Amino acid sequence: MVATNKSNGDSSFIYNPELLRNLEWNSVQNKVTPFITNEQPGEDYFLVRPLQIDDYEKGYLHLLSQLTIVGEITKEEFQSQFLKMQKAGCYFVTVIEDIRDSKIIASATLATELKFVHKCGERARLEDVVVNNTYRGKQLGKLIVLTVTLLGKKLGCYKMSLDCKDPLIPFYKSLGYTLEPGNANTMMLRFESKL
Amino acid sequence: MVATNKSNGDSSFIYNPELLRNLEWNSVQNKVTPFITNEQPGEDYFLVRPLQIDDYEKGYLHLLSQLTIVGEITKEEFQSQFLKMQKAGCYFVTVIEDIRDSKIIASATLATELKFVHKCGERARLEDVVVNNTYRGKQLGKLIVLTVTLLGKKLGCYKMSLDCKDPLIPFYKSLGYTLEPGNANTMMLRFESKL
Repeated sequence: MVATNKSNGDSSFIYNPELLRNLEWNSVQNKVTPFITNEQPGEDYFLVRPLQIDDYEKGYLHLLSQLTIVGEITKEEFQSQFLKMQKAGCYFVTVIEDIRDSKIIASATLATELKFVHKCGERARLEDVVVNNTYRGKQLGKLIVLTVTLLGKKLGCYKMSLDCKDPLIPFYKSLGYTLEPGNANTMMLRFESKL
Repeated sequence: MVATNKSNGDSSFIYNPELLRNLEWNSVQNKVTPFITNEQPGEDYFLVRPLQIDDYEKGYLHLLSQLTIVGEITKEEFQSQFLKMQKAGCYFVTVIEDIRDSKIIASATLATELKFVHKCGERARLEDVVVNNTYRGKQLGKLIVLTVTLLGKKLGCYKMSLDCKDPLIPFYKSLGYTLEPGNANTMMLRFESKL
């Protein structure tokens, strides 16, 4: 149930919602049982769509705080960052809203990166995946991850990667991601936090 | 020996070369022996600078082909991608040139990503690190990686990460990167290649 009633030029979305239409769900049909898609997410009160500039009011940051440190962010700061990301054109922040009470209950971000390698190709990354923990058992994690994964494919990216903690490996394996032998290390350097 | 003689507005650079001045080398002094920096790279014929639009002629893509698949890229395609990346403002592609024969001999890219988490913070990534294999033993790998790492810090990023193959783990450990226990997995999904 994507927001197809919005025009392409609706600048309230962080990216064009038309991109979420007709994703190649047939290629991952065996990974979701019962079968749901971003356009038919299982309940008629779930709406899968790009992040919108008024989602500050819909608990988006509260949802992200289930994932990691968010810190104090004013509405103005949120909107300023939203507009920067919208302008950049490489942030496909995708959410699920429970329209019964206008709350954002899941989110995942596809971020794309321009390359010279791979024939001036584009790499995709999966970032900041979170599902409200009161909505377990509805396959919303699978739904949001597969939605942005299929979007990465649709955008023509040559690969999509993610970093994750050990307990999440089986989940991502079930969706087609692999730990490539000898090439599956994430290393990190944390600078002093500004928070 | 950074190209400080260029004005800030010299659009031949993919980012402002002034950013490479006065990086905090004192914080990593013990990691490089003998001590070299991007401004004093050990030989007066090494120049550390941002990628330039005419580096197509200086063997930049040939260098990248030591790293991974590059494919056929025309000068026009290279310049078009360069300009897209320059405009985006988040691609800090940094190279070392051997000015004796105008060849690019090392490269590393710092790519930054805007976030809502971490108080609308910015994450840094280290990408596409490569040193011409005829220039071993001059610490150019350390030099190029530390240069972009210190740049990530200077830009105010809250963390910097990289993906790497197993044999490179000791190298990156020696530069301050860590495999965080339980949180060091890169997972990958490769879409059909267009090459």
